[in-house]
Amino acid sequence: MNSVSIVGVGLIGGSFALALRKAGFTGRIIGVSSQPALDAALARGVIDEALPLAQAAAVSDFIYLAQPIERILLSIDVIDQHARPGALITDAGSTKVAIVNRAASSIHRARFVGGHPMAGKESSGVEQADADLFRGRPYVLTTRDADLESWIERIGARLVVMSAEEHDRLVALTSHLPQLISTALASVIGSAPDAARVAGPAAVDLTRLALSPYDIWRDIFATNADSVDAALSAFIAKLDELRSALRSPEMERAFENAAAAAKALRR
Amino acid sequence: MNSVSIVGVGLIGGSFALALRKAGFTGRIIGVSSQPALDAALARGVIDEALPLAQAAAVSDFIYLAQPIERILLSIDVIDQHARPGALITDAGSTKVAIVNRAASSIHRARFVGGHPMAGKESSGVEQADADLFRGRPYVLTTRDADLESWIERIGARLVVMSAEEHDRLVALTSHLPQLISTALASVIGSAPDAARVAGPAAVDLTRLALSPYDIWRDIFATNADSVDAALSAFIAKLDELRSALRSPEMERAFENAAAAAKALRR
Repeated sequence: MNSVSIVGVGLIGGSFALALRKAGFTGRIIGVSSQPALDAALARGVIDEALPLAQAAAVSDFIYLAQPIERILLSIDVIDQHARPGALITDAGSTKVAIVNRAASSIHRARFVGGHPMAGKESSGVEQADADLFRGRPYVLTTRDADLESWIERIGARLVVMSAEEHDRLVALTSHLPQLISTALASVIGSAPDAARVAGPAAVDLTRLALSPYDIWRDIFATNADSVDAALSAFIAKLDELRSALRSPEMERAFENAAAAAKALRR
Repeated sequence: MNSVSIVGVGLIGGSFALALRKAGFTGRIIGVSSQPALDAALARGVIDEALPLAQAAAVSDFIYLAQPIERILLSIDVIDQHARPGALITDAGSTKVAIVNRAASSIHRARFVGGHPMAGKESSGVEQADADLFRGRPYVLTTRDADLESWIERIGARLVVMSAEEHDRLVALTSHLPQLISTALASVIGSAPDAARVAGPAAVDLTRLALSPYDIWRDIFATNADSVDAALSAFIAKLDELRSALRSPEMERAFENAAAAAKALRR
């Protein structure tokens, strides 16, 4: 692998570039992004040079799409004609079915592997990029690919291989549902005058995600609405179950089961 | 104030004792608790001596009930006959209506002020006690009391005065609802095989409360079921609203409103 293009040089794309360098990649790293992002990335030494998408694709063995989902879909629509035959293209989008389906119909000369690193920070932008962002975090691939798997291992992430469908169903539970819960909780607390006066650490912790900007969520909901809907149904059913158990000894078992599940998440 | 009794020398009671000392209290601090807690508290110098409740009450100007709610109710039932006339009794229970009502019918010689410091730690026990636990945190009193308010100020807490009813309604939203949300989320994630493989920081953060032991929650739900029920209804209604907006531009406004509420909680 001699030449990598990072398309969308923000927190994730920039971190992937830094992680590749730290893991020993010595080839050239090309950035494709908005001018301010490119300027910041060049200034920080995150990328070696900046090119438009077509030219970058034409000289790259590996293309990393780290844009918002709708932009990734647009890149997929146009990239194949510019890419080298056999080049590896992957993405870092938060949902996978729409992206993998689009790639299956649009990418033929190059090879596409859907990806999703389960990592992030509260602030975005290449200024926040961090070579260790993926370390110890799950990194989902929707198909196996020896080259890509080897880099994922070298940047310290935990490889997880699953279908795009399974990915979208599971992140609806582990990521999209928590976001909606936090948004709903902040909203309910916010509509009670004086609630802020008694808010302790629990309320503060559980409303942190509600501070997230809507930008990235629009695309996530647009491309994973069915699974998010199902996750909300399962969650509301569980809340109703707990509500019925408020005055009953069954609540103790519910707490025990939930604590065991919460512990399992931390393993 | 020459002599204080801390009834229930755990995290909160022990922290209150340490905070009083740090704030300049030079009188004697008596502990009333289980033998292991008393031993640990004496070893750490959190209390000066240990006495049974009746004897401790008989020599104290100030009695601080920091037990679980049901134990506080039992202490209230018996303490008045032992307390000095005019002694100040307060508590640190997580719900206030049941406690304040019980005190109104049982405490006549002494004076009772319901209290709730919005502070805690993941681990309990006097070993975790911390003189700064209340610093910067809301400390609710259900009635005004100049002596108690002055100590709350001196230990660095933020005094909030509100009725027991308002307290219970608001903490149902800011504390009891977050607990049930976390328990329900952990349970839903736990029932999806493989979800743990893709769990990122959002799932981990939002399921932290699910690790809480049930002990303290039994009494909270038993004494605040109506408000918790209402909080669950409001939250489920909001989730249903977000679910209907998954594919609609209204979601953006919902995110903006929730973010504003989450920011207000942090002021």
